[in-house]
Amino acid sequence: MAQATNGAGNIPPLYLDDMQIGDSYTSGEHALDEAQIIAFASQFDPQPFHLEHEAAKASMFGGLAASGWHTVAITMRLMVTSGLPIAGGIIGAGAEVQWPRPTRPGDVLHVVSEIIEIVPSKSRPDRGMVTARSTTFNQRGETVQVLTAKMVVPRRSV
Amino acid sequence: MAQATNGAGNIPPLYLDDMQIGDSYTSGEHALDEAQIIAFASQFDPQPFHLEHEAAKASMFGGLAASGWHTVAITMRLMVTSGLPIAGGIIGAGAEVQWPRPTRPGDVLHVVSEIIEIVPSKSRPDRGMVTARSTTFNQRGETVQVLTAKMVVPRRSV
Repeated sequence: MAQATNGAGNIPPLYLDDMQIGDSYTSGEHALDEAQIIAFASQFDPQPFHLEHEAAKASMFGGLAASGWHTVAITMRLMVTSGLPIAGGIIGAGAEVQWPRPTRPGDVLHVVSEIIEIVPSKSRPDRGMVTARSTTFNQRGETVQVLTAKMVVPRRSV
Repeated sequence: MAQATNGAGNIPPLYLDDMQIGDSYTSGEHALDEAQIIAFASQFDPQPFHLEHEAAKASMFGGLAASGWHTVAITMRLMVTSGLPIAGGIIGAGAEVQWPRPTRPGDVLHVVSEIIEIVPSKSRPDRGMVTARSTTFNQRGETVQVLTAKMVVPRRSV
């Protein structure tokens, strides 16, 4: 079982054959601020609680909160640039996401991805499907998101 | 069972009490181009098949494709601005997403959201949980994404 920090980009590309259930990979960090939250929301999720302090206070969030899809997008960036160096890239077939608490201005996020399933393809000997559970933490170690994603991962040529 | 088109924003805010299993809501359209695909990918999913034509041709995608999270973000915008006028906004607790085929430059997307589960809260009489299945179609009527999201929806005051 490997446990790796890839903040410095020091892990070589991973093939299906390199992975084991329980392996985990820790990304670098991303600092989120109000301007980023408002910019993302203006473009993709223009709702008052993602755009304006006063409206957000009166909402279920009780204060400005990032769009959940913004948290996913930052998580993806962290995984692609430092978290999970899959050979050929991170290509998702599908995913499940939960947001146990909001992401706020000032949060510093990082992602820990754990391999939870590895299924070599029966019809395509050059690839398989890997499921990873990627948990996004804020600077207090609280979970802001759990993303479980199925990815296509190549095998080493034989 | 209601079937509504909200492209013109002509549906009043929806409360839990207004919804029925099988109700469906159709959004307006969004035209996706190469510049949008590259801008999103540069910021959130910087992988060659979302950034460069040549690299994309050689990849599993066989050509430039949008990040799946970009397709989700556009879907969210369409739902928020025209697709699903939930009172108080669209507040997700969690979601599941599948991408049966890539989204490409030139695609014109729209979203059809169907209500598939309605669960009034036992502890909070002012709200409930609604599950919607939102299917994103391209201009050929092909499904590019299926998003199943659980949302917190307010009830009318009694």
